[in-house]
Amino acid sequence: MTHKCLCSDKYSNENAVKNPHLAGLENDYLYHIALDTETMNLVEAFGDTKFVCMGGSPKKMYMFAKYIMEEIGHKLPFGTKLLDISEKGDRYSMYKVGPVISVNHGMGCPTIGILLNELIKLMYYAKCKNPVFFRLGTCGSIGSKPGTVIISEDACDGMLQKEYSIPVLGKLLTRSTELDKQLWQELKSLSLPDDEFEVISGTTMCTNDFYEGQARADGAFCDYTVEDQINYLKSLQRKNIVNIEMESTAFAAFTKAAGIKSGVICLSVQDVLEGDEISVPKEVMDKWQARPQILVARYIKQHLD
Amino acid sequence: MTHKCLCSDKYSNENAVKNPHLAGLENDYLYHIALDTETMNLVEAFGDTKFVCMGGSPKKMYMFAKYIMEEIGHKLPFGTKLLDISEKGDRYSMYKVGPVISVNHGMGCPTIGILLNELIKLMYYAKCKNPVFFRLGTCGSIGSKPGTVIISEDACDGMLQKEYSIPVLGKLLTRSTELDKQLWQELKSLSLPDDEFEVISGTTMCTNDFYEGQARADGAFCDYTVEDQINYLKSLQRKNIVNIEMESTAFAAFTKAAGIKSGVICLSVQDVLEGDEISVPKEVMDKWQARPQILVARYIKQHLD
Repeated sequence: MTHKCLCSDKYSNENAVKNPHLAGLENDYLYHIALDTETMNLVEAFGDTKFVCMGGSPKKMYMFAKYIMEEIGHKLPFGTKLLDISEKGDRYSMYKVGPVISVNHGMGCPTIGILLNELIKLMYYAKCKNPVFFRLGTCGSIGSKPGTVIISEDACDGMLQKEYSIPVLGKLLTRSTELDKQLWQELKSLSLPDDEFEVISGTTMCTNDFYEGQARADGAFCDYTVEDQINYLKSLQRKNIVNIEMESTAFAAFTKAAGIKSGVICLSVQDVLEGDEISVPKEVMDKWQARPQILVARYIKQHLD
Repeated sequence: MTHKCLCSDKYSNENAVKNPHLAGLENDYLYHIALDTETMNLVEAFGDTKFVCMGGSPKKMYMFAKYIMEEIGHKLPFGTKLLDISEKGDRYSMYKVGPVISVNHGMGCPTIGILLNELIKLMYYAKCKNPVFFRLGTCGSIGSKPGTVIISEDACDGMLQKEYSIPVLGKLLTRSTELDKQLWQELKSLSLPDDEFEVISGTTMCTNDFYEGQARADGAFCDYTVEDQINYLKSLQRKNIVNIEMESTAFAAFTKAAGIKSGVICLSVQDVLEGDEISVPKEVMDKWQARPQILVARYIKQHLD
């Protein structure tokens, strides 16, 4: 009872939305991001969007919006400040700075999936041309030190399948989680010799659970030994899995299915081979958070026309 | 490659945490809710907790904290106000009002799963006795009108399985999603003849996707017809599935596995048989949001010793 998704293999914006029913809607209310097609001019508001950057927490994405504003030299008119565009939806926080959207997605595939459906429709209604989507996240690394920046080459689930499946009308709909090779290679090449951080790439494992699902022994439940844990994590390492997080399969699958070029860049906050606890001091963590943002800012500046 | 979870069938707090490794931890940092066992006295701060109420959005759970404070006659000392206990974690918003915790869980099973792991550990460290957990959510109903309050009898996933499975060390770990019968029957009995809303119960379907996963035809992707959609939703109705949301399987599975009594009470914001759009005006929705809270407040007041 499975069927493969007929998604495009080409990255082009021509058919970003794969839903013939949308043409017949009088109003499309993008419920969770609090936008709609009837009362708002989405082309005017969002038509110039070229980069959509997302990450887990609302504060981090607010900080990214302020950071990228400086980096690209975008100035707000005197007497104005950044507005959380989706505040009324009470689910996500979204900011727009010139051609860049910065929005938080929460934790896990379902919440990033809701956001992606609505952002992909937004790009379509706003007639955006070839937007590039980034996820800037945090992760556990397998064998590389905390502070490392990890670029995903592709994403697998907790059963090592390089696909994202959801039940649709009682059957599993399966989509590829391949990521754009040219993009992850370009992101990797933006690392400079003087950078204080290392940049690596490989397969990212995406789990639906933070504790048992990532082989942690410090959740509310655990029926395996620390030896089982380490053996399992080392078996992942031998398969070129370099990090573990919770959104990359849905992110890769939905963007690819929409023909949108996309990349996943994560900061490691712990080496999972060295223990369960995330023990980096807050001041260090706050400084490190900038690292994936630095790479993405370099990319954005090179592709601003 | 599956193994069944050896979870307790009895509801008692004696062994809420099923993880022998925790006893050996010097400090347990409940990362996403920004609490820890080393620098905080969790028994003093949380030991009197009897009810843990959770829902999707941070603002709604702040409003619930204020509402339940009035209902149980809890007064804050002069010159103080409610604090978001988990603000530093930048993931969840949590409030405590006497014996009641009010906390938001975001959208989808992974995010409520992270929260539940940390709350179950919190109950254990704080030596709370027989806490009851509630999820107060929103949902789409199948065949009952918007505004109806729906109490879950049990929860199934998008493949109609009454279980919650996560890959653990490469194998699927499957837990039952049964809910406490006595509790849902008691909640249902708290509906009064003069109430402006109807209360029904049945099986709740929990999906990992809001659009295709809930048979909507207004997402970014859709390869089925409206006829397929309606036929599918009617087939669910014939199976006593009364509503659809995105957290009940993980909520039921983790609480049951921890031996914690729990209930799911949702407000319908649309009848999915009547179309995809959620079109209830904001003022009406704001008024309706109180309905599940009214039932839970009645339960709490009856069980305050």
